Amino acid sequence: MPQAASPASPALPVIAIHGGAGTLTRSHISPEQERAYHAALQAVLRAGQDVLAQGGSALEAVCVAVQALEDCPLFNAGHGAVFTAEATHELDAAVMDGSNLAAGAVAGVTRVRNPVLAARAVLQDGQHVLMIGAGAERLAQSAGLAMVAPDYFSTEARLVQLRAAQAKSSGAVLDHDGAAALAVSAQEGPLHEGRKMGTVGAVALDAHGHLAAATSTGGLTNKRPGRVGDSPLIGAGTYADDRTAAVSCTGHGESFIRVAAAHDVCARMAHGGATLHEASEAVVHQALAAIGGTGGLIAVDRLGQVCLPFNTEGMYRGLARVGQAPESFIYR
Amino acid sequence: MPQAASPASPALPVIAIHGGAGTLTRSHISPEQERAYHAALQAVLRAGQDVLAQGGSALEAVCVAVQALEDCPLFNAGHGAVFTAEATHELDAAVMDGSNLAAGAVAGVTRVRNPVLAARAVLQDGQHVLMIGAGAERLAQSAGLAMVAPDYFSTEARLVQLRAAQAKSSGAVLDHDGAAALAVSAQEGPLHEGRKMGTVGAVALDAHGHLAAATSTGGLTNKRPGRVGDSPLIGAGTYADDRTAAVSCTGHGESFIRVAAAHDVCARMAHGGATLHEASEAVVHQALAAIGGTGGLIAVDRLGQVCLPFNTEGMYRGLARVGQAPESFIYR
Repeated sequence: MPQAASPASPALPVIAIHGGAGTLTRSHISPEQERAYHAALQAVLRAGQDVLAQGGSALEAVCVAVQALEDCPLFNAGHGAVFTAEATHELDAAVMDGSNLAAGAVAGVTRVRNPVLAARAVLQDGQHVLMIGAGAERLAQSAGLAMVAPDYFSTEARLVQLRAAQAKSSGAVLDHDGAAALAVSAQEGPLHEGRKMGTVGAVALDAHGHLAAATSTGGLTNKRPGRVGDSPLIGAGTYADDRTAAVSCTGHGESFIRVAAAHDVCARMAHGGATLHEASEAVVHQALAAIGGTGGLIAVDRLGQVCLPFNTEGMYRGLARVGQAPESFIYR
Repeated sequence: MPQAASPASPALPVIAIHGGAGTLTRSHISPEQERAYHAALQAVLRAGQDVLAQGGSALEAVCVAVQALEDCPLFNAGHGAVFTAEATHELDAAVMDGSNLAAGAVAGVTRVRNPVLAARAVLQDGQHVLMIGAGAERLAQSAGLAMVAPDYFSTEARLVQLRAAQAKSSGAVLDHDGAAALAVSAQEGPLHEGRKMGTVGAVALDAHGHLAAATSTGGLTNKRPGRVGDSPLIGAGTYADDRTAAVSCTGHGESFIRVAAAHDVCARMAHGGATLHEASEAVVHQALAAIGGTGGLIAVDRLGQVCLPFNTEGMYRGLARVGQAPESFIYR
């Protein structure tokens, strides 16, 4: 496997992931807490890296990585997803294959254990791109995917966050137990969970030169039921095109939809001749910033270049090239 | 009101609409049948034109026009929407304001009389961009919009089309009554209803130099419940940005999603320096054609230029400038 890429030789396969962007917690974070997040990110990276090392497709690698992120309760997707205002979970996910622009997505699902696999089932079915609600669940079940009771997604930490968000929006005064619970919640991770914009995602370049992207989310804590953010929307939170880049976004979803963030990275490269770095930075620091949009994105191009820009205080993120040690980051 | 636009003077306000794209019917179309479609298109254009002539916003004009298209049973949106495989209706719509990139959309609604007004209510509420299902309906109802029983959307002609599609996909042999009903269906309009990709939409430039776009649809006849096409997806079927163009698409929705068609028109102008004409033609005849995507789009820019490209045999469409007679077209 060549260690240096030239225009004529294939680039080293690489995977990059994110686990949400947001503001830093004000309370002191212990080294143990930070280590837990780094360990989780690196385990996910290794899972995706293994797929690529064995010659697997970028599509397979991003699905494996996002499935692992969904299964980890530290991140807002799958098990550990945030609660809606009605204390339910509504999950969204998308995948896109840059080799043929095939895409699949689900929104508003409540019983599919791994929404990213449901999105992939929609892609593989091939008839539609976006399926919502019960129709999406029927397709996932027909594809043989694991279905769960809705409380599979619930964790105590997320419930505390919901109650905190509801108390804040109602102006209610917290009793001692409530305040104590909030303090616990605020100390849960390096990024402030009450204000973190939670999403998980992965992008990859495989040994065959193909790109893919996947994104999954539980949405916003205390969101109105029925709200769908950018994650499952092809072009907004997720996009992949072998000619340009694979992109997965995280942040205030409505802003990413309004600027078609993921597609705009690719469009700046395709139509404007921008590099991956120029395109990614322009979308995050210019297009999104112009409408007050906060968050970040991960992007990889056919040369194996990776860009992980964000305009928040931190973003859980990392990358791993085949044959090299995974690297993970939280702060700037 | 100046009749000729120069870079320094405001362009004449203009509205353009579409009512779906598809293949021509093989049977003979009577002049009366053609006239009915032209009359409907021109009535809608006049309604939008009136808003613009009175100094109304592009956003108001496209909503008035799409509401009129939804109310007309000839087009697949609102009353006259197609049936799903389960003989129900699932409606989608989106609106976008090019002056501030504000957007609103609904998908999978079944009881809102005018889905485009529900999309506008989401935009005006301002909290979210895309709302689906029951959550979208609750927001529409809170906004005071008219709610209807689901059979409000049903027409006999659409039920015949569903039965024909189901008979075709099941390989069933039609009896005499079925064959006769199909013949009636096939003669219903200049474009083949069984194969037409039905959507309605409008784009406008107002006297203040602002652009807006709106799209609404009943989706595909015999579609799987839960399927969402490009119409309600900002960037796919609908996009507006004062700096470039307002765009509304119609056609095989999955293809439009995969190339982010509406946003790509704007991106080719913003990043590649393409004219409205170059950008619109490239999306329809190159980007979509490359993945086998059939359909068309309507687009207007800040100079009041209008482009109405399609790669099917026909597209119901028209435009009207303030102070000029509306023009409508069906064939190439």
